[in-house]
Amino acid sequence: MAYPFLARRAARLPDTLPADPPETTISFESGHAFPAVMPDLTAAADRALGYYRAETLQYGPRMGLPDLRAWLAEYCARDGVRITSENVLVTNGAKQAIELVCRLLLDEGDSIVVTAPTYYTALPIFRSYGVSFIEVGQDADGLIVDELVDRIAQLKRDRKPLPKFIYNVPDFHNPTGVTMSLPRRKALIDLAVRERIFIVEDSPYRVIRFQGEPVPPLKALDPSDVVFHIGTFSKVMTPGIRIGWVSASPGMVARLAQLKSDGGSSPLAQRIVLEYCAAGELAAHTKRVQTTYRVHRDRMVASLQEHLPEASVDVPSGGYYLWLNLPPDVDGDHFAMRAADAGVSVLGPSRCYALPDGGHPKNNVRAAFTHATPEEIDQGIRRLARALRPRTSGRAAVAVR
Amino acid sequence: MAYPFLARRAARLPDTLPADPPETTISFESGHAFPAVMPDLTAAADRALGYYRAETLQYGPRMGLPDLRAWLAEYCARDGVRITSENVLVTNGAKQAIELVCRLLLDEGDSIVVTAPTYYTALPIFRSYGVSFIEVGQDADGLIVDELVDRIAQLKRDRKPLPKFIYNVPDFHNPTGVTMSLPRRKALIDLAVRERIFIVEDSPYRVIRFQGEPVPPLKALDPSDVVFHIGTFSKVMTPGIRIGWVSASPGMVARLAQLKSDGGSSPLAQRIVLEYCAAGELAAHTKRVQTTYRVHRDRMVASLQEHLPEASVDVPSGGYYLWLNLPPDVDGDHFAMRAADAGVSVLGPSRCYALPDGGHPKNNVRAAFTHATPEEIDQGIRRLARALRPRTSGRAAVAVR
Repeated sequence: MAYPFLARRAARLPDTLPADPPETTISFESGHAFPAVMPDLTAAADRALGYYRAETLQYGPRMGLPDLRAWLAEYCARDGVRITSENVLVTNGAKQAIELVCRLLLDEGDSIVVTAPTYYTALPIFRSYGVSFIEVGQDADGLIVDELVDRIAQLKRDRKPLPKFIYNVPDFHNPTGVTMSLPRRKALIDLAVRERIFIVEDSPYRVIRFQGEPVPPLKALDPSDVVFHIGTFSKVMTPGIRIGWVSASPGMVARLAQLKSDGGSSPLAQRIVLEYCAAGELAAHTKRVQTTYRVHRDRMVASLQEHLPEASVDVPSGGYYLWLNLPPDVDGDHFAMRAADAGVSVLGPSRCYALPDGGHPKNNVRAAFTHATPEEIDQGIRRLARALRPRTSGRAAVAVR
Repeated sequence: MAYPFLARRAARLPDTLPADPPETTISFESGHAFPAVMPDLTAAADRALGYYRAETLQYGPRMGLPDLRAWLAEYCARDGVRITSENVLVTNGAKQAIELVCRLLLDEGDSIVVTAPTYYTALPIFRSYGVSFIEVGQDADGLIVDELVDRIAQLKRDRKPLPKFIYNVPDFHNPTGVTMSLPRRKALIDLAVRERIFIVEDSPYRVIRFQGEPVPPLKALDPSDVVFHIGTFSKVMTPGIRIGWVSASPGMVARLAQLKSDGGSSPLAQRIVLEYCAAGELAAHTKRVQTTYRVHRDRMVASLQEHLPEASVDVPSGGYYLWLNLPPDVDGDHFAMRAADAGVSVLGPSRCYALPDGGHPKNNVRAAFTHATPEEIDQGIRRLARALRPRTSGRAAVAVR
């Protein structure tokens, strides 16, 4: 029996999920954690399931555990973000925070601003709200605010509605690794306040910094609650715990909590995170993560120089990813398919652009350096080189003219 | 700075959450678990964070852990539901499953069918999708299918669109405690198949049965994947773990998984559940829960007979709730407010109806017998009696004419 009754947002979804790659594939595709740098949560879980069992096995408060919200407010305050518990909603990872901000702000037909390229997993969430996209370019200083100023001026001249929010990953941008400069941040905040457009600051990688000094978060520069700041324990601690947060004005956070209709984030997961953090473990663990991923990044950069000198890269000071610039005549999507055949997965560029016909460069792929071991990183880059320069092949090679 | 930019679904949300009741309040309001019957999950968590740490601290598969999906398929099969892993999506509790089915099926302006009364927490989820409601009555056999047949015939005569789905809690209905009879279930399935309307079978209380034989789930009677069956570990095991599931056709489940944009349900929480269940603990624990809540139910019924004989109740054979019939001239919402002042919380009736002006009886409240101790149940019912029959009060009493 066929039911022609799917919602518009669901009508074009395929009815199967893509198959998993073979186990022998080296994965540079996803921002997975390196197994050897995962934290030991057994002591935290023991306390959560013992001493705190009446709390952790019950329904939790809609906004999150008060103790965790207070801890998060302090954690953010150390980074220059002046908030209290009242500004914090605990979520199931950063992705649920993105989803909730969309539920709060977006009606079908609205527009939002994203960088080109942008975080590819956020795009289907945005699309499911029926929005249109305004893409803005990036350079080494991050989102090009002047370009956005021009776009907004044009919208006003055309008497068109302004975008509902500007989505950005200002620290170690996904996929490019770029960190937005302070002048650009200030300019973006000024624009947002002036034009009354919200900013969604998605900041999963901020503390994964290998070198240099951090730039203040957009939220720290925010004079009037124009910024929704999204954080997560996934990248610095463990993705498996599924705990993130969003901070905004108390009124907005209360509304987000009402739209969070999942029965509250797991108090057990929250208490495990909090016991780990409050015991002072997070600071030491963050250093381990930084050290480990710095080694991984350096290994991938060195391996690229040795085995794939055709690719160039602006080496990021932190984060999870390299954005490879391939020779101009290489199509990154085709290259990603060839790479998968060669036993290594990378993310093709077209998935990172909101507008399919935006005239974007095609000669990039995103390679995550986090998940594979250093040895696998070497081997994976050699496989990428084989995919770029096949010697003999029964299949069509990537065009390198 | 005011931003008039909220989405329609958010525009009328209050900007604060209701305050928590005082700690001395005895709670009959929420379907919380009884602390003394919570499971011991420490051994399961040890294994999850030890032996399975590479799995549980990483991102998990979008559909859920394959082992848990397989276990759930078997668990449902023992209840007559013939499904395999391919039919199962793991969710963050039953509420996320409800939300996802809405995302899959509902566009603004669609209608859905609910019982009058219905599960009050589902209503804001449904409303956030901009639906209209068709309310159908219930009697001791559950949803009155003939009434729905008439309503649908009328819609067809008026050439109006049919509802997208029929939402129901067929076992130990929330809030009434009624279990739908087998003939009614068969009639509902026949109607749904004939008219091509989905059924959302929300079944959190099914195994919380104190006496009598279970009636087959709607999903077990489903000839053609017309039923989305929603289950959860919240009511039988622990709400704090936030793990539920939805089963449907493989194609629908794959689409639901694509709409589940939260990075996957926590593999740590899933593995803890699975280790507990696969070790055979769930069966024994289910018995403990049944025994405990049966005692609570009996105590509340006896206490009502003793202290509040004005209230009558159709004693349910399981579940979490009594639906009190108060004297016909008592307004249950006012009574719930008086009860809160007297130190006991119950759920007023108006929150359980989809249509505010549906002409519903007002002389009911829902009282959960699960969370309070037997002694608190006695005391709470005595407080309810005081709220119904205030001797002296500086405030206006509930009108009992």
